[in-house]
Amino acid sequence: MEPILVDSPGTLAEKHEDAVSEPAAVRLWLRLLTCSMTIEKRVRRRLAEEFDTTLPRFDVLAALDRRSEGMMMGELSQALLVTNANLTALARQLQSLGYLEMHRDPNDRRSWLVQITDSGRTHFREVATEHHHWIASMFAGMKADHSQQLYALLAELKESLAASAERS
Amino acid sequence: MEPILVDSPGTLAEKHEDAVSEPAAVRLWLRLLTCSMTIEKRVRRRLAEEFDTTLPRFDVLAALDRRSEGMMMGELSQALLVTNANLTALARQLQSLGYLEMHRDPNDRRSWLVQITDSGRTHFREVATEHHHWIASMFAGMKADHSQQLYALLAELKESLAASAERS
Repeated sequence: MEPILVDSPGTLAEKHEDAVSEPAAVRLWLRLLTCSMTIEKRVRRRLAEEFDTTLPRFDVLAALDRRSEGMMMGELSQALLVTNANLTALARQLQSLGYLEMHRDPNDRRSWLVQITDSGRTHFREVATEHHHWIASMFAGMKADHSQQLYALLAELKESLAASAERS
Repeated sequence: MEPILVDSPGTLAEKHEDAVSEPAAVRLWLRLLTCSMTIEKRVRRRLAEEFDTTLPRFDVLAALDRRSEGMMMGELSQALLVTNANLTALARQLQSLGYLEMHRDPNDRRSWLVQITDSGRTHFREVATEHHHWIASMFAGMKADHSQQLYALLAELKESLAASAERS
């Protein structure tokens, strides 16, 4: 069971959505949020139940898996949008599991190079394969061309979001 | 500024998405997540900056605004999917701002009836109107019929999610 967080986003999503008085854009947003939260919640639960791991750990390994030469801690922190302090805690956990190694940068003794281990890679790929199956199964009820349409429309939404950020 | 949380979902979303090796369903999920996180983050920031409030507070007032006769604490807690302890803290904050009143249930002295005040309603509607403008502006770059298509496709996805939950 994952904890119920008071600051989980838009917990009223499902309730709001059926309110006909809600303007169309808000109803669209709440439906998007409902879908996103449902998928995310299931992914978090299955990561916990089936692999005794978390989304942030999975994200760290995903980043490191794509960069076999390793990443500097600061670079990893930027890529993952997490603070250095939080990332250090995460990295220490993954290190104690044998999934990554941390080396001091010979040029800057305050900096750390983080590198995935063979064992980390094996673990990550196992989880990633299952993760792919979970996601595929959640979208399996959609017609193939509809998923493609959804993908294209979300690209249009991303552009709209970028344009509205520039305006504001 | 909202704090950067280490457990924010799928922080690698944007990075992953361009990886051609990612299976289609995962790419679709990551794009959905990116859109959802972007909108949510902006809404949280604007609630904080423009109204000095939070999404959970806004959710509580939204629920109470639809039920002028008030709601029992337990009922509100279920509707919002938050724990009683968390909700009590939230309700106390809103009470101290004068936005809601808490009355003991005469039939069960351990229970509380929570009711929005006139001032709470005025505040909520002001925030809700702005919230609507923010959302509308974020979707404004999409063609009108495309937003409708997106809305319909997300309904199909919701059904797919419900079906996959039954299977698992």
